[in-house]
Amino acid sequence: MKRIGFLLLAVATLSGVFAYIAHASGQSDGDSSPIYGVKIPAGYRGWKLIAVANLLVAGKVDQLRAQLGNDIAIKAFKEGKVPFPDGTIIAAIHWTRVPSEDNNKVLDGPFPGAQSFVVGSPVNVQFMVKDAKKYAASGGWGFADFTGGKPGDRALHETCFACHTPAKDRDYVFTRYAP
Amino acid sequence: MKRIGFLLLAVATLSGVFAYIAHASGQSDGDSSPIYGVKIPAGYRGWKLIAVANLLVAGKVDQLRAQLGNDIAIKAFKEGKVPFPDGTIIAAIHWTRVPSEDNNKVLDGPFPGAQSFVVGSPVNVQFMVKDAKKYAASGGWGFADFTGGKPGDRALHETCFACHTPAKDRDYVFTRYAP
Repeated sequence: MKRIGFLLLAVATLSGVFAYIAHASGQSDGDSSPIYGVKIPAGYRGWKLIAVANLLVAGKVDQLRAQLGNDIAIKAFKEGKVPFPDGTIIAAIHWTRVPSEDNNKVLDGPFPGAQSFVVGSPVNVQFMVKDAKKYAASGGWGFADFTGGKPGDRALHETCFACHTPAKDRDYVFTRYAP
Repeated sequence: MKRIGFLLLAVATLSGVFAYIAHASGQSDGDSSPIYGVKIPAGYRGWKLIAVANLLVAGKVDQLRAQLGNDIAIKAFKEGKVPFPDGTIIAAIHWTRVPSEDNNKVLDGPFPGAQSFVVGSPVNVQFMVKDAKKYAASGGWGFADFTGGKPGDRALHETCFACHTPAKDRDYVFTRYAP
């Protein structure tokens, strides 16, 4: 029994060491983003709405998007304050955009030729987590991109901060609060 | 003093009578919808997200839309239960859809020809309020459509239930919960 206990302890310790190495080297440990170590925040789907958006790239991308924020984020957006305070988390949910034949049939009466698009299947979910000290090298933000619950690779996450740099005067956040 | 008191009472009573007449005849009393008497629910902008959508009618309508629900609505959507229970309120917020030049500049790198659309200005806000008894004549739903905080006219509200009838098997609700 003692040996099994020791074995379990050893395995647990080694797992911890490997997890630490993976994290320190910027690799994902399975459920957190490379470089930043951001996990999917519990309950984010129930957060309040910041805004919605639509991204089209002919033949490649056709998405409906929603940006949600935790309470710290929503308060900051409403007050229009930048930089966002530590603890801010912004979630961006991306779905495919698909035509709704049901809606089109109904809308064709009042709006002949109406094209109604609704949410199809989930594509990916992205997070920005504000911690000015921890993420000082990336404007105070930790980034994460998950597809099917799994974080994208290191190469993908290397692009996050660079892409957000043009929004530096808005603390690297493109999304504006929808009225 | 007595006379002024009586006068005030008389005015208040008459106001009440006029408000009642307005309501009973299906006219808006200023802040509630004709026919149904639905007011803008407090705090609806902070409700949880049901789904997002996009409506296009060439040359006429170009909108991004979000459907939000109060807690009763969200619970029912997640459980997939119909009919929705009394107390359910669904809010549909409609904004103009406008191109984001800021976003396009950034996205053009990874996605040449990307077209990013974001929320422009508010168009209107619609509500569906479930009360099976009160609204028995319209599938248990009271409807409301507000533009700039003011309810639309009676003719507009006469179209609500008829338009929702094709969704009868989903308790007259077109929107589905976005995964």
